[in-house]
Amino acid sequence: MNKIFSDLQSGWDITENLLSQTDTLLRETIFTEANGYLGFRGNFEESFMENKDAGYDGTYINGFYESNLITYGEKAYGYAKNSQTMLNVPNGKVIRLYIDDEAFNMGTGETEHYRRSLSLKDGMLTRELVWTSPKGKKLKIHIERLVSYLHRHIAAIRYEVTPLNFSGEVKLVSEIIGDVRNRIGKNDPRMGSSIKQDAMETLFLEAETDFSCIKRKTKKSELSLCCGMSGIVDTENQYLVAPCKDESRLETTYTFDATCDNKIRLDKFLCYVDSREFDENELVEHVREELSQICKEGFEHLKTIQAEFLNKFWNECDVEINGDTALQQGIRYNMFQIMQSAGTDGKTNVSSKGLSGEGYEGHYFWDTEMYVLPFFLYTRPQVSRKLLEFRYNTLDKARDRARELGHKHGALFPWRTINGEECSAYFPAGTAQYHIDADIAHAVRIYVEATNDEAFLCDCGAEILFETARLWGDLGHFNPNKDNKFCINCVTGPDEYNAIVNNNCYTNLMAAENLRSALNAAELLKLKYPQQYRTLCDKIGLSDNELAFWEKAVDNIYIPYDEQTGIHLQDDSFLDKKQWDFENTPRESYPLLLHYHPLVIYSYNVCKQADMVLALFLLGDLFSIEEKKRDFDFYEKITTHDSSLSTSIFCIMACEIGYRQKAYDYFMSTARMDLDNHNGNTADGIHTANMAGTWMCIINGFGGMRVSDSVLSFAPFLPEGWDSYNFHVTFKGCLIKVEIDKDSAEYRLLDGGSITFMHNKETITIDKTVKVRKIAL
Amino acid sequence: MNKIFSDLQSGWDITENLLSQTDTLLRETIFTEANGYLGFRGNFEESFMENKDAGYDGTYINGFYESNLITYGEKAYGYAKNSQTMLNVPNGKVIRLYIDDEAFNMGTGETEHYRRSLSLKDGMLTRELVWTSPKGKKLKIHIERLVSYLHRHIAAIRYEVTPLNFSGEVKLVSEIIGDVRNRIGKNDPRMGSSIKQDAMETLFLEAETDFSCIKRKTKKSELSLCCGMSGIVDTENQYLVAPCKDESRLETTYTFDATCDNKIRLDKFLCYVDSREFDENELVEHVREELSQICKEGFEHLKTIQAEFLNKFWNECDVEINGDTALQQGIRYNMFQIMQSAGTDGKTNVSSKGLSGEGYEGHYFWDTEMYVLPFFLYTRPQVSRKLLEFRYNTLDKARDRARELGHKHGALFPWRTINGEECSAYFPAGTAQYHIDADIAHAVRIYVEATNDEAFLCDCGAEILFETARLWGDLGHFNPNKDNKFCINCVTGPDEYNAIVNNNCYTNLMAAENLRSALNAAELLKLKYPQQYRTLCDKIGLSDNELAFWEKAVDNIYIPYDEQTGIHLQDDSFLDKKQWDFENTPRESYPLLLHYHPLVIYSYNVCKQADMVLALFLLGDLFSIEEKKRDFDFYEKITTHDSSLSTSIFCIMACEIGYRQKAYDYFMSTARMDLDNHNGNTADGIHTANMAGTWMCIINGFGGMRVSDSVLSFAPFLPEGWDSYNFHVTFKGCLIKVEIDKDSAEYRLLDGGSITFMHNKETITIDKTVKVRKIAL
Repeated sequence: MNKIFSDLQSGWDITENLLSQTDTLLRETIFTEANGYLGFRGNFEESFMENKDAGYDGTYINGFYESNLITYGEKAYGYAKNSQTMLNVPNGKVIRLYIDDEAFNMGTGETEHYRRSLSLKDGMLTRELVWTSPKGKKLKIHIERLVSYLHRHIAAIRYEVTPLNFSGEVKLVSEIIGDVRNRIGKNDPRMGSSIKQDAMETLFLEAETDFSCIKRKTKKSELSLCCGMSGIVDTENQYLVAPCKDESRLETTYTFDATCDNKIRLDKFLCYVDSREFDENELVEHVREELSQICKEGFEHLKTIQAEFLNKFWNECDVEINGDTALQQGIRYNMFQIMQSAGTDGKTNVSSKGLSGEGYEGHYFWDTEMYVLPFFLYTRPQVSRKLLEFRYNTLDKARDRARELGHKHGALFPWRTINGEECSAYFPAGTAQYHIDADIAHAVRIYVEATNDEAFLCDCGAEILFETARLWGDLGHFNPNKDNKFCINCVTGPDEYNAIVNNNCYTNLMAAENLRSALNAAELLKLKYPQQYRTLCDKIGLSDNELAFWEKAVDNIYIPYDEQTGIHLQDDSFLDKKQWDFENTPRESYPLLLHYHPLVIYSYNVCKQADMVLALFLLGDLFSIEEKKRDFDFYEKITTHDSSLSTSIFCIMACEIGYRQKAYDYFMSTARMDLDNHNGNTADGIHTANMAGTWMCIINGFGGMRVSDSVLSFAPFLPEGWDSYNFHVTFKGCLIKVEIDKDSAEYRLLDGGSITFMHNKETITIDKTVKVRKIAL
Repeated sequence: MNKIFSDLQSGWDITENLLSQTDTLLRETIFTEANGYLGFRGNFEESFMENKDAGYDGTYINGFYESNLITYGEKAYGYAKNSQTMLNVPNGKVIRLYIDDEAFNMGTGETEHYRRSLSLKDGMLTRELVWTSPKGKKLKIHIERLVSYLHRHIAAIRYEVTPLNFSGEVKLVSEIIGDVRNRIGKNDPRMGSSIKQDAMETLFLEAETDFSCIKRKTKKSELSLCCGMSGIVDTENQYLVAPCKDESRLETTYTFDATCDNKIRLDKFLCYVDSREFDENELVEHVREELSQICKEGFEHLKTIQAEFLNKFWNECDVEINGDTALQQGIRYNMFQIMQSAGTDGKTNVSSKGLSGEGYEGHYFWDTEMYVLPFFLYTRPQVSRKLLEFRYNTLDKARDRARELGHKHGALFPWRTINGEECSAYFPAGTAQYHIDADIAHAVRIYVEATNDEAFLCDCGAEILFETARLWGDLGHFNPNKDNKFCINCVTGPDEYNAIVNNNCYTNLMAAENLRSALNAAELLKLKYPQQYRTLCDKIGLSDNELAFWEKAVDNIYIPYDEQTGIHLQDDSFLDKKQWDFENTPRESYPLLLHYHPLVIYSYNVCKQADMVLALFLLGDLFSIEEKKRDFDFYEKITTHDSSLSTSIFCIMACEIGYRQKAYDYFMSTARMDLDNHNGNTADGIHTANMAGTWMCIINGFGGMRVSDSVLSFAPFLPEGWDSYNFHVTFKGCLIKVEIDKDSAEYRLLDGGSITFMHNKETITIDKTVKVRKIAL
C-alpha cells in the first residue's frame, strides 16, 4: 500500500509536496479534474510525451467512444458484437515553457518549493514551484487548472511565470495534441485493449492568433468532436503571438521579452464539444462562440463559479468526521470524484473509473444503480433521475437484446455498455448477470420512493419496471422439481466467482422485488394516471394476464435456504462445492482471478464479493437480525473482496448486526482505497463504486439509514476513535443534517417543510418550527 | 440433403458422371485422397485459382500447424494461449493443359463423357472426359491420382492427353504453388479462422529439368517442410522441358509437338517431408532422393502396391451389406476415409475432419478415442496402439496443463489440440470437458483388453491411467452435502448444450472406470512386472495412499439418479431446467448452437448429443435393460443430434433395447452423412467420428458386439430390407468374419489359433479344426 497523499493539513485538499518520478500514473489519476462530461487526468502541462512510460496524458469525454468488432477465440450466437471504448481525446492541457533553448521539465534542473494540490472546496488543481534550469535560470511557476462544473464544455489553465534571476526571452507554447491514443492494455483482464491504434482522423484544423481548433472523427462509431483553445495574456512585458498547425497538432507560441521579477501570465481556455450534442457541421462554430464568451468572462469568473458550485454541493452532501483527518480527506475526496464522474444529461452515465482513466474501457456497469445512484439520490436527487433517464433512453436497445437472447417480451439491459448495447465479451460474467435488470428496477423504485417523482414514473420508470419484469417472467419458470416454485436458472449473481448457477439467491430476491415494483407501479398508474397507463400498455402490449403471472411468480419465488444451518444459499449447488484452502493461499495469490483458472474458482466455495450479503442490505426487511448474522458470518469467511464493490457492503451489514470493530475495519479499507492505492490499480482510474460505497458506509452503516415502506429511519452510532461525525440527507424534498457524537444524535432540518422519520424505534418529526431534535444515544 | 454421389453401380466406387459447377467444395472433400500423413482434397489439376469461390485447393500434412496468440474478448488466467491450425501446404497437384493459347478448363468449351471416380478398391482418383476447346480443338483427357499408402511422403498423378481432331502444340505445365493460404473461416464457430494470412515463408527454391522443390517454414511454430516434384514423360512426339521458378512457385513446362490420336502422358511424382521427421537442413536432399527412387519404380508400381494395401485392408475390416448398395457404398467409404485420416507414427492423430478440410482447424478431439480408435482396435489394432502413443507422447504437456488448472498431481489432456497443448478457446465447452481424461483411459483399457498388449501397458498405458486417475482424485471431493459421496463439480460432459454442471453422470461413471482401471493396472503390474511398477511409481511419485484414495472414490462415486422416474440424470440440476419447445422450433433453427445464445441453450432440458446414452453403451454392464430403456426413452425426446457424434450411439443402444426400426433410421442418417452432405457442412471436411460411428452401428449395433470382462460377445440381428451382412473382427490376435442372414449367424475364423466368445447366452469356440460355426437366429 502506497501512502502518497497523506498530507493531512486539512480535510479539504489533496496535496503532494514531494516531487517524485514514481507512481506518476497513480498521481495523474488522483489529481483528475472532471465535470461529468469532460475529464482531465492530472498530467503536467509540459506533458510526458517524451517519456511515455512515465505517465499517460489522458483526456476523456463521457460516452465518447470508438467501436470495433470483438474478436473471440471461439464465437457463438448472440455474443456481443462490438467493443465500445471511451477514447482518449485531443489533449488540450499542454503548455510548454522555454527559456531560450531550455525547456521546462521537472526531470532536469532543480525544483524547489514544489507543491501540487487539488482543492475539494474550490475545484482547482494548483501547482507551484521554483525551478532552476540546467543553465542556471531561476523562475517561479504557478499553475492553476479547472474543468468547469457549470460550463461543461470548458476547461481553463492559468499559467504564471516569474523570472527570478534573469531577464530575456521566455516562451510559452500552448498546444492541442490531436493524435493521442488509448493506452495499450496490460495483461490484466480488467484493462481493455480494443483500441490498438489511432481511432480518430482529423477532419478540420484551424490556427489563428486568438483561436485554434481541431475537429476529429472516429472511424467506426462515427462520432466527431471539436476541441478549441484561446489564450489571454497578462504581462507588462512585450510579447509576440504566433499560431501554427501541422496535421493533427495546434500550437500557439507566446514569446515574451521577460524581465526579472515581473510575472508573465497566460490564461488558456479550452472548449470541447461533440456531435452527440451538436450537428457535426456546427461544432467549430459552437466552440468559437463559447470560447469567445468564456474569454470575455475571464478566468477569475470561472474560478468563482467553480467554488460557488462546490459550496452548494458540500452544503447538500458534506460528511464531516471529527477526529480522523485521513478519513475525512478520504470520504470528501470520494464524494468529490463521484460528483466529477457523473454524466448529468440523461445520455451518459458513470463509468466505473469515472473520467480518470481507461480501466474497464470507460464502461457503465451496475455500479451506477447499486452504488453511485444512492449517493446522488439522497443528496442531489436531480442527478439520480438523469442517471435513470440514461437507462430509459437505452431501453429500446435492451429490448433488442432480450429478443437476441430468445425472450419474446421484455428488456435485458447490458452488463457493460457505453451506447446501450451489450459489450461484455465474456458472457458467464457478463450477459449472464441478468440481475442488472433487477438492479435498475430497484433504483427506479427507490428513486420514486425518495422523491415522489410520479411524473418520472409515468414517463420512464413504469416502462422500465414493466419491461424488466417481463424479462424475469420469461426467464424463470415454475419448476415441478422444486414444488412448482418460481426458479431462475443459468444466471450469474453479483459474485463473479460463481458463474452460471441456478437460483442465485440475490437474483431471485431482486427479481421478485422487480416484479412486485412493476405490479405496484401498475396499480398506482391504473388508479392515478389511468390514461397514461393505457397508453403505455398499448405501446408495449402489456396485458393483465402478464400482471397475474408476475403476481404468481412473486408469491412463489424460490429462495435457496439450508434448513439445517439456517443459511440462505448463494445458489442451488453452493453447499456442494469444495472448501477453498484460505490458510495456504498466500497474499500474492489475490485477487484469485489473476492466479486461478475460472474453472478452479467456480468449483470452490469462494466469493469475490458481497452477493447474498448485498441482498441482506438491499432487502433488509425480508430477514431477521439472526438470519442476517448467520448469513454474514457464513459468507464473510469465504469472501475475498477481490472486487472493490464488496467491503462497503460488508461494512454496512457489520454495523447493522453490531459488529462495530469489524465495520470500522472494513470502512478503513474502502475510505482511502484510491488515495492509498489499496488495490494497486488506481493508475488505471478511480473506483467510483467503492467511492460511493464509502459514503454508504457512513450513511447506511454508521448512520444506520434505511428507507422501508417509504419511511426514512436511522440507527446511528459513533465508531470508536472519532469525536463526532455528521452528514447530510435529502429525502422527499427535505434536507437534513445528522450529527452524531458520543452521547447524542442531532437531526437538523436545513431545507424543506417537514419530515418524519425513525430514530431506532422512535418516531421523530422536524419542521419549520422545531428544526432540531437531539436524542441521547 | 444433397444426393450427388448416388451412382450405385458398385459399392466400391464413389462416382460422379455429371460435371457441375455447384457443390464444388463438397465434391473436393468427398474425393479426398490421404494416407494419414499427406492429404489432397479432390481439386482438379487445372486448379481453381482463378475463381476462388468455386472451390478450395487444399493440401494438408497431418499435425503440420501454425500457431498464433489466441485473441479473447476478455482474457482470464489459464486460458489456452496459442491457437494451432493445420496448414494448407504447398499445392503440388497442379497440372495445367494448354492447346496453343487455350487453357483447358471445364468451365469453358464443351465437356463430354465426363466421369470422376474414387476407387475404394484401388485407392485411385480417376477423371476422364472429352473436351472441345472454345476454338474447336477436341481432346481426350484421362487423369489418375494417388496419395501413396505405403510411401507416406509420396503422391503421384498420371496425366494423359490425346488430341482427337488436331495436331499441334500441346503444353502441360506442372506446378507447385507455394504461397497457399488457409480458407478464411465463415461465420460458423465450427470453422477456425486463426490463420488470416500466409503463415509460411519460403526458405529455398530450386527448379531443374528433372527435379524442382520448395522449402517453406512457418513463422511461429517454426516447422518447415519441403515439397518436391519430378516428371516422367511417355510420348512418341517430340517435346521440350523448361523449368522455371518465381518467389514461391515452381513450374515445369512440357511443350509437345502433338499429333492427332497420339496419346501424350506425363507422370508427376510429388514428395512432401517436414522437419518433425528430418533435420531442416536435410529436407531437400531427402526429397530429392526419395523422388529419384520413386521415379525409378514408376507410376504402375505405386498403383500396384496401393491396390495391394487396400486388398489387405479390406480383408481385415470389410463390411458387406447385401441388399442395399447405397448403404454398402456409405459404410465402405467411411472405413476407407477413416483409414486415410489416421496418423500412424505415434506423433500424430486423427483430426476431426481427417486430412480433407480445415473445419475445426485440423484439431484432434476425444473423437479419436471414443469413435475412431474402436474401429482400428477391432480391425487393425497396431494402428490403435499408435493413436494411444500419441497421447503418451503428449503426457508431459497434459501434466503441465493440470498444474495450470491448479491440480497438484495428475495430467489433464487437452480438449482440442495438435501439438499436445490445449487450444480450445471457449473453456465451458473445452477445458471443462474433463471427461477427455477418462475417455483416453477407457481407450487404454479396451486396447489392452482386446490385444493383451501388456508391454504397452507397462511402457505407456499404466502411466496414462495413473496420471488421469490422479486428476480425478484431485478434481473430485467427498461431498458432505451428498452423503460424503465422491462428487465432481463444474465440468461439462459430452453434451455441450449443458455446460459447467455438477456431477455429470457420464463423467462420474467414466471417472470411476478410469480410477478402477488405474487400480487394476497397478495390481497387475505389482504382480507381473514389479520392477517396472516400482520404476514408474518412482518416476511419477505415486504412493499407495493414492491408490487407497482412488479405491474409496470408486466405491463412493456419486451417480445422479431420480428414484421416482428411475432415470439417470445427466447432471445434478438436469430436472430443474425448462422444457424446450420442440414442436415450435422450426427445422431451420437447427443446429441450435447457430441460432440461440449459449445461455438460452444451457437453461433448457435439451441435449446436443448422446451423453448419458453414451455411458449406457460404454459401461453397459452397469445397467439393467430396463434402465437402459428408460434412459434411452427419456434422452431421445430431448436430443437434437446437433453433433455428428450422436446418432450412431443412439443407433447402437436402440439395437440393444430392441428398437430395431429406430436403430435402422438412426443408421440411415449416419451411414451416408458425408456422401449425402446430411449436415450441410461436408464442404469443410469429412466427419471422421461419425464415419467410425457408422462402423460401430454395424458391429456394436446390429452385430451386438461387446467386450465384457475380456469376453467377446455378439447378439446379432438382420435389419429389415437387407438380405444379409457380414463384418470382420480382430480380437486377441484372431481375425473372424461374422455373417448374418435372416436365419443364422455364421462365425468363421480367418486367422489366429482359437477364439471363444458368446453368441447371446451361448459360448462358442472356433479354432483351427472347427473353423466355422453357424447358429440359427
